Amino acid sequence: MAIKHTYTEAGVNIALAAKAKGLIKKHAATTLRPEVLGDIGFFGGLFEFKGYKEPVLVSSVDGVGTKLKLASVLGRHEGVGIDIVNHCLNDIFTCGAEPLFFLDYIAMGKLKPEAVEAIARGLASACREVGCALIGGETAEMPGLYTGEDYDLVGFIVGVVEKDKILMGKTIAAGDVIMGLPSSGLHTNGYSLARKVFGETASALNKRYPELGRTVGEALLEPHRSYYHQLKPLLPFVKGMAHITGGGLIDNVPRVLPQGLAAKFNSQSWAVPPIFQLIEKRGNIDRDEMFHVFNMGMGMVIICSAGNVDHFTKSLPEAKLIGEVVKRGEARVIIE
Amino acid sequence: MAIKHTYTEAGVNIALAAKAKGLIKKHAATTLRPEVLGDIGFFGGLFEFKGYKEPVLVSSVDGVGTKLKLASVLGRHEGVGIDIVNHCLNDIFTCGAEPLFFLDYIAMGKLKPEAVEAIARGLASACREVGCALIGGETAEMPGLYTGEDYDLVGFIVGVVEKDKILMGKTIAAGDVIMGLPSSGLHTNGYSLARKVFGETASALNKRYPELGRTVGEALLEPHRSYYHQLKPLLPFVKGMAHITGGGLIDNVPRVLPQGLAAKFNSQSWAVPPIFQLIEKRGNIDRDEMFHVFNMGMGMVIICSAGNVDHFTKSLPEAKLIGEVVKRGEARVIIE
Repeated sequence: MAIKHTYTEAGVNIALAAKAKGLIKKHAATTLRPEVLGDIGFFGGLFEFKGYKEPVLVSSVDGVGTKLKLASVLGRHEGVGIDIVNHCLNDIFTCGAEPLFFLDYIAMGKLKPEAVEAIARGLASACREVGCALIGGETAEMPGLYTGEDYDLVGFIVGVVEKDKILMGKTIAAGDVIMGLPSSGLHTNGYSLARKVFGETASALNKRYPELGRTVGEALLEPHRSYYHQLKPLLPFVKGMAHITGGGLIDNVPRVLPQGLAAKFNSQSWAVPPIFQLIEKRGNIDRDEMFHVFNMGMGMVIICSAGNVDHFTKSLPEAKLIGEVVKRGEARVIIE
Repeated sequence: MAIKHTYTEAGVNIALAAKAKGLIKKHAATTLRPEVLGDIGFFGGLFEFKGYKEPVLVSSVDGVGTKLKLASVLGRHEGVGIDIVNHCLNDIFTCGAEPLFFLDYIAMGKLKPEAVEAIARGLASACREVGCALIGGETAEMPGLYTGEDYDLVGFIVGVVEKDKILMGKTIAAGDVIMGLPSSGLHTNGYSLARKVFGETASALNKRYPELGRTVGEALLEPHRSYYHQLKPLLPFVKGMAHITGGGLIDNVPRVLPQGLAAKFNSQSWAVPPIFQLIEKRGNIDRDEMFHVFNMGMGMVIICSAGNVDHFTKSLPEAKLIGEVVKRGEARVIIE
């Protein structure tokens, strides 16, 4: 007799998917705003759009990267939910946008409803924090593509900014100053290198380092922070912002600089946090490489005219003057 | 001497990522519309939003699923780019929305710029087809999470519909008729089961089957079609639509039916295409299971009042009358 095939035996459990979706829905419901119409679970998420004069929609997509590997090994999934919302949020906020709604994509080899729920809890808490509606998502079971405890997590955000308030760095000029706001850790970048340096077994990640005051796994899983509430009131004084993600200060700051200008940083102006120093030392990694891979302690860079620095330092004690805008020579970023 | 670590040696090549991004940008540029402001590659994609009275934004996120496995094995990536755009597009179109912009996420274990470019070509061609701007994306290299030729591809779409034109099936009543529009194949669902049935080596996929008139790999990789241009002029006659994705007619049609109503299909009213018959026979799969996993030849279902059927059959010869809306008994979907 021939074998009878079923979808479940092929590794896809529709009932389990329904359960996972129900759990996400429960958390998503805590994030809804009056503009959300209809029900989560319809083919499209509906968001009524009103109250703007010349609105420009600002969107971004991002993944958490291989930080997910560490979350899997340690079974701690809530933080990566926070990570992906804040990563997307900071990205659109660099254009001056406020968040409207967010959608997630979770793909696993075998759906684990508890892990999905923990992720959803993280997504929802970060969304609530900034009034962003978690309006939809996709949870996919993909046997053979993701193995063991592996999964991927992707986020999409849509926000809005009035056309005359878009920040794209166009008014930046030589002589402007560069302020930095501290990161909470690696955020979501450089994890493939960090995994190489520390290893990624539970025992390696559970090792305590005196300079960290906690385990390296805890330090590495520290969620990506948001800069939205701190910086929003100061937007009128901002000429441009750069979210320091993959490529570090070196690749991200030029994204907001007009042609002909460069950024000069004084690396003595802030203390590189212990986690980066530890990676550098243990991995025997060149300083240049470190600055090209990691945020090195600065998660958001703000460029403003020299006369406006006080607005930042007064209301944001954590803001640091870390560099200045200069006429461009050979390099677009100089780290001294 | 201690080993010197670098990001490249850890499996992440920033230069390769820049190359891949450049290739995507080239294709994305062919899709831009006047509303798109700024440059692809900025932190957020900017889309100026104007010309609507009471706009509602409609968004959706989807993945291609394990159809990607077959694309990898056969080295044919353009089609899955088309797949993901059309999947997302059909989803928001069921609410009556027209597409505005799209973002993609591509994650690979090791970035292959040629594969990325082929995907981007597919994304861009499907976007151009419906006037949707490919406004941004993320290309991630994630060593250790994706192995060999494996990759994931996710799409995110935002469209718009006027509030008084939202389709949510609220006016559907017993006695309404159900029309179906043919799928082009499995679209993006049921591939884990299909892979189990046929195997997923190149030699298995390159096998010709007389009933398919081509190889099974070609039949399985047939891109997900869009229903946008065919159905848009007929929207005034549509009460509700269901895009037949994961869960088939059984799970998707109830999503648009008001409580208290059920859908009764006459499965004799259309010919189940050969690819589904072949899967059913070779896999010795129950008919019920087939209808719960695959679209079985119907990719989009339209519900309209009996008096409006002629509008569809006249302008869309491929539309078929496949069922009716009835008062609900025990089941929400009956397939006779």
